[in-house]
Amino acid sequence: MFKLTFARKIMAAAACAAVLISPAQAAEKVYKLKLAETWPTNFGVFSEPARRMADLANKMSNGRLEIRIDTANKHKSAFGVFDMVRAGQYDMGHSASYYWKGKVPNTLYFTTMPFGMTATEQYGWFYYGGGMELMQKVYEPFNLMSFPGGNTGVQMGGWFQKEINTVEDLQGLKMRIPGFAGEVLAKLGANPTNIPPGELYTSLERRTIDALEWVGPSMDLRMGFHKIAPYYYTGWHEPGTELQFLVNKRTFDKLPGDLQEILKSAMRVAAYDMTVKSHHESGQNWATMKAEFPNVQVKSFPPEVLAALRKANDDLLAEHAANDELAKEILDSQAEYMGVVRQWTDIADRAYLNSFE
Amino acid sequence: MFKLTFARKIMAAAACAAVLISPAQAAEKVYKLKLAETWPTNFGVFSEPARRMADLANKMSNGRLEIRIDTANKHKSAFGVFDMVRAGQYDMGHSASYYWKGKVPNTLYFTTMPFGMTATEQYGWFYYGGGMELMQKVYEPFNLMSFPGGNTGVQMGGWFQKEINTVEDLQGLKMRIPGFAGEVLAKLGANPTNIPPGELYTSLERRTIDALEWVGPSMDLRMGFHKIAPYYYTGWHEPGTELQFLVNKRTFDKLPGDLQEILKSAMRVAAYDMTVKSHHESGQNWATMKAEFPNVQVKSFPPEVLAALRKANDDLLAEHAANDELAKEILDSQAEYMGVVRQWTDIADRAYLNSFE
Repeated sequence: MFKLTFARKIMAAAACAAVLISPAQAAEKVYKLKLAETWPTNFGVFSEPARRMADLANKMSNGRLEIRIDTANKHKSAFGVFDMVRAGQYDMGHSASYYWKGKVPNTLYFTTMPFGMTATEQYGWFYYGGGMELMQKVYEPFNLMSFPGGNTGVQMGGWFQKEINTVEDLQGLKMRIPGFAGEVLAKLGANPTNIPPGELYTSLERRTIDALEWVGPSMDLRMGFHKIAPYYYTGWHEPGTELQFLVNKRTFDKLPGDLQEILKSAMRVAAYDMTVKSHHESGQNWATMKAEFPNVQVKSFPPEVLAALRKANDDLLAEHAANDELAKEILDSQAEYMGVVRQWTDIADRAYLNSFE
Repeated sequence: MFKLTFARKIMAAAACAAVLISPAQAAEKVYKLKLAETWPTNFGVFSEPARRMADLANKMSNGRLEIRIDTANKHKSAFGVFDMVRAGQYDMGHSASYYWKGKVPNTLYFTTMPFGMTATEQYGWFYYGGGMELMQKVYEPFNLMSFPGGNTGVQMGGWFQKEINTVEDLQGLKMRIPGFAGEVLAKLGANPTNIPPGELYTSLERRTIDALEWVGPSMDLRMGFHKIAPYYYTGWHEPGTELQFLVNKRTFDKLPGDLQEILKSAMRVAAYDMTVKSHHESGQNWATMKAEFPNVQVKSFPPEVLAALRKANDDLLAEHAANDELAKEILDSQAEYMGVVRQWTDIADRAYLNSFE
């Protein structure tokens, strides 16, 4: 739902009453769109894509696209973004696809998957490997369009109060880890819990929980976990978390062609820019963490633990694929794409990074 | 240099002779720009950014930006792009900054450097680490603006007829490797040569040269080197080769503000898209190479060889920094940025990729 207004007085029309509406005049209409974010106000790099997109769209359209952004502090419905955009209460949303898995199970696969693709690999799948088409297939029935909305890069495995040396160490582990990764851990005997962000620090400090995952240094620094947990584990569960722009299809269809193109490019730049900015911020923030708390230890799960996690993940995904034809189509597409592209990543990025030291 | 024409009949103006020129009418002007590419016609992923950019700019501007692309087959001056855009003979160029090092030595640092940043790290430096400002400082005196133009990702170290096991194996090695990386190799006794692309295959096949580097599977497949050389070495010399859009500053300044924004975003999307597409194509093409010639062996230079190459590189860069204040400023900025961000890349991307197998 959006409103049409006139941006400026059309001087030609004012001077000559009998004039027809010209294409130029039609091009003066201002389209006011509203966007709902899942994020609260000032939520670090997560807050950037919507603002970057709105600013670019405004400048490129010479003011014909005005996009107002409401954070969750305003609309009070962080996880209602899907429904609000679907209903047309908002024209757009900025969120993450996997939040809708309880509502539409196949939305799970368009954010990131444990042991899955990195950001670059996944952009390749989206844009050149059929991913966008599959995502659209999932969102179409809901009058929604979904676009990449910025990537966090590899998320860290989390902050731990104790070391994980064997699969047995996961038994009874109380860890804040929501969503699908929590299901994977639960298969190995861990107790995944969900705790409101505002209570996480105290819960970890008082050992109400043994561990938690958040994002990575880009978002973790402000949470202060490095002050109270000795171990920072490397990532396995969210190797390239892509956020999401949602657009109400009816809103989009009513926009003139040039504004549709402007909107799409603005979202695309904003998404890519967040991906780069996340890496940048994590670099800067990781340096700050180490300077403040040099004793933080980076650990990786031992191969045995990773193998068990991978098996649990594979088993869960096999269940998903067996139960739903479209899930199978998506998962097969991802597995096939990654099977090819990772072999290149290994001799390119991995070999290069490993050539140091 | 660009021409102004009128895109459409302005209906309002036709109906009322006394009418003033409205902003809407001004917004109907079509700006016709010409872009010169360094690349020949149909040059794989290298040909994509200019076309993608021109198409996006045209659609977003509703036809007000028309950008004509001339390949090197047309303008016959692959390495004259800098001069032609500087002089206004072309409004834009698509090339690579390091091609101008003979003319303006400090342009060298804005493409890629041996043992330097990966694509994501370098985008971070450009956009959030001061890189764009330094690049502008180098190009400003020439009435030019320079923007990232798409990244090849990690380039392979090249195709070799024999294994390189020691630094001594580099002695007298005849290798096609142009530019700064060739200088590094020459310091270790190799004989870098430059050979026209059309003669490379035969030269390598007949062992007129012992080795050559080109790009990576995205561009190497069509060259056919995998059919005649047994060893494909992993990369060290071009870890994130960023191509370049050049814009004549006077052309840019004459564009209306909205078209300036459209042009910048179109270039930015086109650059990022090529980066993703390069990774995608390399993945697909590497699979094809292995299927056709399963005996191709991927090798990495031994640590001793890498250490010698790194030292030669450091020595050369120290000379550059000692001779030129701006070179020192750029090299210091890159070294400092990479020193911070690589520590994150190591515990994020590198640790994740190494958790497989």
